[in-house]
Amino acid sequence: MSYPDLETHCGRIQRLEDAIGMLHWDMAAMMPEGGAAARTEQMAALSVIQHELATDPRIGGWLAASADSELDGWQAANRRTIERRYLHATAVPAKLVEALTRATAACEQTWRRARADDDFAGLRPKLEAVVELVREAAAAKGEALGVSPYQALLDQYDPGTTVERIDALFDELAGWLPEMIERVIDRQAKGPALVRPEGPFAIADQEALGQTLMAALGFDFAHGRLDVSHHPFCGGAPDDVRITTRYDEADFMQALMGVVHETGHALYERGLPAEWRYQPVGRAAGMTVHESQSLLMEMQACRTRAFIEYAAPLLRDRFAPGGGPAWTVDNLHRLYTRVERGLIRVDADEVTYPAHVILRYRLERQLVDGTLAVADLPDAWRAAMKALVGIEPPDDRDGCMQDIHWIEGIFGYFPTYTLGAMAAAQLFAAAREALPIDAQLARGEFGPLVGWLRENVHRWGARYTTDGLLEKATGAPLSADAFRRHLTRRYLEE
Amino acid sequence: MSYPDLETHCGRIQRLEDAIGMLHWDMAAMMPEGGAAARTEQMAALSVIQHELATDPRIGGWLAASADSELDGWQAANRRTIERRYLHATAVPAKLVEALTRATAACEQTWRRARADDDFAGLRPKLEAVVELVREAAAAKGEALGVSPYQALLDQYDPGTTVERIDALFDELAGWLPEMIERVIDRQAKGPALVRPEGPFAIADQEALGQTLMAALGFDFAHGRLDVSHHPFCGGAPDDVRITTRYDEADFMQALMGVVHETGHALYERGLPAEWRYQPVGRAAGMTVHESQSLLMEMQACRTRAFIEYAAPLLRDRFAPGGGPAWTVDNLHRLYTRVERGLIRVDADEVTYPAHVILRYRLERQLVDGTLAVADLPDAWRAAMKALVGIEPPDDRDGCMQDIHWIEGIFGYFPTYTLGAMAAAQLFAAAREALPIDAQLARGEFGPLVGWLRENVHRWGARYTTDGLLEKATGAPLSADAFRRHLTRRYLEE
Repeated sequence: MSYPDLETHCGRIQRLEDAIGMLHWDMAAMMPEGGAAARTEQMAALSVIQHELATDPRIGGWLAASADSELDGWQAANRRTIERRYLHATAVPAKLVEALTRATAACEQTWRRARADDDFAGLRPKLEAVVELVREAAAAKGEALGVSPYQALLDQYDPGTTVERIDALFDELAGWLPEMIERVIDRQAKGPALVRPEGPFAIADQEALGQTLMAALGFDFAHGRLDVSHHPFCGGAPDDVRITTRYDEADFMQALMGVVHETGHALYERGLPAEWRYQPVGRAAGMTVHESQSLLMEMQACRTRAFIEYAAPLLRDRFAPGGGPAWTVDNLHRLYTRVERGLIRVDADEVTYPAHVILRYRLERQLVDGTLAVADLPDAWRAAMKALVGIEPPDDRDGCMQDIHWIEGIFGYFPTYTLGAMAAAQLFAAAREALPIDAQLARGEFGPLVGWLRENVHRWGARYTTDGLLEKATGAPLSADAFRRHLTRRYLEE
Repeated sequence: MSYPDLETHCGRIQRLEDAIGMLHWDMAAMMPEGGAAARTEQMAALSVIQHELATDPRIGGWLAASADSELDGWQAANRRTIERRYLHATAVPAKLVEALTRATAACEQTWRRARADDDFAGLRPKLEAVVELVREAAAAKGEALGVSPYQALLDQYDPGTTVERIDALFDELAGWLPEMIERVIDRQAKGPALVRPEGPFAIADQEALGQTLMAALGFDFAHGRLDVSHHPFCGGAPDDVRITTRYDEADFMQALMGVVHETGHALYERGLPAEWRYQPVGRAAGMTVHESQSLLMEMQACRTRAFIEYAAPLLRDRFAPGGGPAWTVDNLHRLYTRVERGLIRVDADEVTYPAHVILRYRLERQLVDGTLAVADLPDAWRAAMKALVGIEPPDDRDGCMQDIHWIEGIFGYFPTYTLGAMAAAQLFAAAREALPIDAQLARGEFGPLVGWLRENVHRWGARYTTDGLLEKATGAPLSADAFRRHLTRRYLEE
């Protein structure tokens, strides 16, 4: 009876993690600023308990005892997921976990100032300490999992996807992307001039419109909320999904597409298999699949011309009852598909975004391997930006200091953004073959698309790897083909 | 080194309980209805962990080993509080705790229907089951603490206060209260007629006014929030106090006084000794003291004529810029001090409220002692209402089925409402001797009053019993004298 014991124990961990997720949402969306210290105490106490439960040596015993148990497909996948998590949780000694927590906290504090002051020299020793500890942790995890250190880090975010696969996919992408960026920008420069809608756009209007779109996409407000936070995210738990956005009175596009993006995440959470709700296999397959669901909505579905045809009257009714040249379908579509070389990843469009990611992936692999020293990061960053995006940052603030990931010790996460974009293109292409999607989107009808995703992606939870899931849903493992066809069609043909 | 171990362990429990408190607030104020099942799972998982930590046998060992330790006053009080909690937590076998959880959940479900249908016969078997289990638990706790079963229940909510003290106080109160109610109602009937302000009163206005009053009282919005829930309460944690109210467009008085009441609770939480933040001694002394702080604001301070002089222009500016007879200080003060015999405790004014409480206290003692059968509760209720409040309920819905306390297995809590009202009167009288309170309230100046409360009540946390704290703050243990003088002055002399 050791497999049932695993389920009971891991069910408890999952419920605790859900509680932590709710508190995390509250911290970002509701908590008054003075509550921060108390929340840190609460979260730290829950994290210690979570860690104790996740490293409980009985898990190892139950895993060993259930190795030859007769399990069905779901149970076996669940056991595998539990085993993987247990290896991750137990690989790193408690002392190293503690040292990492302290080092990243110190690094983050320094980063907030150093970034503002463009002071990489000031940041450097703190970041070196973080990288050093991350390398130790990666080595420990790699040994436990029997893979390379960087592979072990990646495995935390996208289980089953290998560094070799990513290298192949990204090398291919890097082969054609710079030229495509060039061509798209040239083409857009020759096209009609953009007309920027002029604000202010009342936040209440933006919020109401966001809720309208969420409802159209199929967000269930009986099982979730929309609120405001500094960094938009999708949190909470599958039956109580909390998404956030932020508003800018001068620009409605960012908040609106942010809402659509987070709604994509939320639909995935809601569609996860309810019968495995509190087991690891019942949760997301990984960050690549999660990101594919948000990008499928934000980039694939909601920047089609068809969708803009549906959305344009809604936008006009709210923001410009008199209409005007900024509010035509043509102009709005141009706005939503504008491509520009920029320094900042989070502001990038879908064509240039992968270049930002490939750059980070290559650098973080070298940092983890020890072939790039933190001291050499600014130069390496500039060179890679020049080669991949085509521009060079004038400082480190908007260069290698722009992201919080490495500061927080998060290595191995970046590639999932672009793997997700590729998966989104591949899934959307498959859905488009099965359904008259453009006609449906032009009417704001997301039901069939979401139904297809539920059936082919959401309901499988973590049962398959990213490649396994893609193969099941689209007939092929993840590739860059659909993504390339998508960009070519939208930006060079349409 | 066993006392420090106690602090470490109990600090962990307190942080976990704070996290549970935040989730409880979210459930009442933020959660979409579809999140209920998931929240139940999260709360249950955290409760099991809380119970495991609170009954950890090492606590017993540390308590025994620290019995002769040299501790200062705070540490000794902390150790006493920990010991008391440990006895409560370990007295009741896990099986009985589980049976109670199940029985009260079933009883509550039946109660929601049975109350609506005025069907006491339908409720009876479920309530009998609850009372039976409560009696078992009370017997177990009584044995562990070396006191009577009801005393053990009371001790959970107001440690240190004895049944004998309550009997004496309530018997005295019951001696003069019915006649006082009679006289006050007669007097008010002969006075000027009330003019009811006519709504609707926009919720946004009520909320803004509530926030204005909260700020005047000293609520720190950097460490707390005001939101909406079905049942108003004060939750969260001392550094992040979440209070709620509910709004009725037809009546602004309820929401506004609710906000003032919960702000009183919130100020107490904020004023608890920060240096003992995560130890039991650093938290509230008990429900009597807690309720004294809300009632001191709601009943003592904010229904004085002085405060109404301050508040009347604020109310007029918001709700009736044209003024009118409903908005004079005289009329508003009459509204806020109106006394009426009613069937429902939560709607009662401060003069009749104690009658409702004494009635419940006497009946619940008999239920726990076994001298009153659940079957005889409706008749006993009617007789006691007639004797104490002066009216008889026409049904059980607005009679013995009106409160959720017994349904949820909460016995021993009711008396703290009226002990709190008495303590509020006694503390307010003492503050009035020390400060020119009426002149200050007429200017909306709460700083001196809150400062007095911080100094004499809040900062002591759970270091003293209710009587000990009152004696320190006012020179005498809790008595009904100040409460009687207060009622006499406000309702029969002013």
